[in-house]
Amino acid sequence: MTRVRMDLFVSLDGCTSTTGQSPDNPMGDDWGRLTASHLATRTFRERVFGDTSGAGTTGIDDAHVAASFENIGAEIMGAAMFGLHSYPDDPDWKGWWGDRPPFGTPVYVLTSTAPRPPISMDGGTTFHFRSGAIEEVLAEAVGAADGKDVRIGGGIGTAREFISAGLVDELHLTMTPIVLGRGTRLWDDLPGLDLTHRTTAEVAESGTIHVTFARQEERP
Amino acid sequence: MTRVRMDLFVSLDGCTSTTGQSPDNPMGDDWGRLTASHLATRTFRERVFGDTSGAGTTGIDDAHVAASFENIGAEIMGAAMFGLHSYPDDPDWKGWWGDRPPFGTPVYVLTSTAPRPPISMDGGTTFHFRSGAIEEVLAEAVGAADGKDVRIGGGIGTAREFISAGLVDELHLTMTPIVLGRGTRLWDDLPGLDLTHRTTAEVAESGTIHVTFARQEERP
Repeated sequence: MTRVRMDLFVSLDGCTSTTGQSPDNPMGDDWGRLTASHLATRTFRERVFGDTSGAGTTGIDDAHVAASFENIGAEIMGAAMFGLHSYPDDPDWKGWWGDRPPFGTPVYVLTSTAPRPPISMDGGTTFHFRSGAIEEVLAEAVGAADGKDVRIGGGIGTAREFISAGLVDELHLTMTPIVLGRGTRLWDDLPGLDLTHRTTAEVAESGTIHVTFARQEERP
Repeated sequence: MTRVRMDLFVSLDGCTSTTGQSPDNPMGDDWGRLTASHLATRTFRERVFGDTSGAGTTGIDDAHVAASFENIGAEIMGAAMFGLHSYPDDPDWKGWWGDRPPFGTPVYVLTSTAPRPPISMDGGTTFHFRSGAIEEVLAEAVGAADGKDVRIGGGIGTAREFISAGLVDELHLTMTPIVLGRGTRLWDDLPGLDLTHRTTAEVAESGTIHVTFARQEERP
């Protein structure tokens, strides 16, 4: 059965994105601190940077990164994450990820502007642009995933929309033990996921705390 | 050397106290959920409830509770935690803890109203009432602790005052993996403790996440 999954970075004080975004610094200030233990993993280096040297961490952080890539059949992301807000007038913009994006699946980009034609990239990634309701786009993604899972990639606005609508079956938080004090707060006005999902946590060798919410299955 | 220590309960979304406080329900709604794993420990049951049956959990949660009682020479708490706000006109009010409070040390109660005479209780606890600046009260408590540590007991308003003033050397968070969505937020407008303190985390058998900030020693 397809599960709707999401991985987010969050600071100890609940900040999920940082300030100061610009075209040259699309993730904003402090993003490097939030994601350092994730980017240091062997799996991330291999899957995203194409580093096949075997360098990188191989512990609990790496296991979570590897799991995040497993069994994904389609991805959904917001326009800002794809870069449409940073490059609104560039019809040739193909995202931040180079010629061979790490997704390897259909990627549905949510946009309120006129849909663009799909873009096929190396490695199996095709970007589709959709302006419908998130439930409609999710239904299409579930169909495309063909039994595999659908990942909601972000950014945080899109992520919060899907959580608020009760559409996320598994939410994995990479909680970095830093206090940012600024940026978008994950938790504001969200439903209490602990009431509908089972919560587990573990601490990686890096000190990063991994918190997972998994929707409790319906009893038969 | 005396360290200034603090233990706080916090939900995953950073809430440290809950709504709906009243004399009959002084800790407010959801407090039981925030503190459940702490109250279930053998050490808490023995030290606070006087339960010497040996019942209670004995794992990581218990080790943290036991550590919180160790080497404390004096305690500081706010007026609300002592109960002065709930019972402002009762000169015989002696706190919530019965005839034998679990502190066993001098306890300095911060109050802006006319100081009361000290109250000596069974078991070595004496409540002192002080209306001076927190730095003055802390200096007196450090003197009384005679080389042992000083604990800032709470409530959250008092705790945040001491953290904001940079006076806390060790902050231990019992982070319960629940999402409260309401109540006083720990993190708002606090300095980034991760910049001055070393952060460590571990997950207890109960699923509770223990996060500790310890001030980095000055290099000689």
